[in-house]
Amino acid sequence: MIFEENTMKTERIYEGKILNLRIDTVELPDKKYSKREIVEHPGAVAIIAITDENELVLVKQFRKAVEKILLEIPAGKLEVGEEPEECARRELLEETGFTAKEMKYLYEFYTSPGFCNEKMYLFLAKGLIKGESNPDNDEYIEVYTKKIDELYDMVINGEILDSKTIIGIYTAKMLMSNKNF
Amino acid sequence: MIFEENTMKTERIYEGKILNLRIDTVELPDKKYSKREIVEHPGAVAIIAITDENELVLVKQFRKAVEKILLEIPAGKLEVGEEPEECARRELLEETGFTAKEMKYLYEFYTSPGFCNEKMYLFLAKGLIKGESNPDNDEYIEVYTKKIDELYDMVINGEILDSKTIIGIYTAKMLMSNKNF
Repeated sequence: MIFEENTMKTERIYEGKILNLRIDTVELPDKKYSKREIVEHPGAVAIIAITDENELVLVKQFRKAVEKILLEIPAGKLEVGEEPEECARRELLEETGFTAKEMKYLYEFYTSPGFCNEKMYLFLAKGLIKGESNPDNDEYIEVYTKKIDELYDMVINGEILDSKTIIGIYTAKMLMSNKNF
Repeated sequence: MIFEENTMKTERIYEGKILNLRIDTVELPDKKYSKREIVEHPGAVAIIAITDENELVLVKQFRKAVEKILLEIPAGKLEVGEEPEECARRELLEETGFTAKEMKYLYEFYTSPGFCNEKMYLFLAKGLIKGESNPDNDEYIEVYTKKIDELYDMVINGEILDSKTIIGIYTAKMLMSNKNF
């Protein structure tokens, strides 16, 4: 039997620009108390954008949290009141310059549900038209397109280090193996 | 051209049980400053554990951060000084009661590199022997085994909500399609 944990007390530690931190004191099934450190995040979108040449659109950027330049699928945080599809179209345009005739919601997942409520909505973008990218002031991004089989090998070889991008590549490979794609 | 961001100042906000929070002030290529909110995490392992009947081992538990009961592959945080393989064997035993004759490192990834340094090491466990599970005092877990094709359909249908578990299911499906598996 799995019990939900009732919150007995909440301590708010930090309210920030992209995340908040709180500590919940919870009651366990045996009536003992435990602490849960929880990062609050507004949620995000990630986009599997596939060109007419059947290549996947990727962005390369420096990630301070891990001190590495990572290759990722386009993604970004939800703004207040923003719908996920609207966010997906905005982020795709800002980061890569592409607009999409078709933007289809696929599914959603939590990136780190053990301590963070970040939910990521995954979209499929097709019918891409290239324009000008317009990243945020503090974003420095390079745009690439790559064949899905090459990216699939990169996952197996441990060269893709971002979880949403691994999910995006596996999902793209699965979708493109369907002859109706 | 992608530039790395130099840290000009670090403010430590919180030091906790499973995570820390700091704010780095960074210098951007245009010499302007920006803030990066960064969650520090010790790293974790996740285990694709496949039974002799070719089923995947899963755990179901309540996750306070998202206020949901989630179906996940076995996983857990690295303890201080612990090697990833040692951690994978410990967590598999504690959460599910299984020991594995074979525990093979596959690859690693960051769960949320935009704001968190959590790195997850993915392992493949085979030759499973069932014993007694021994979860932490504050963990309440149910153990399941399921066919990989059923889980694959659950991913597509949006019924698997945890990113490492989606990666684990896609990877297991890919590995098991190899006739030498």
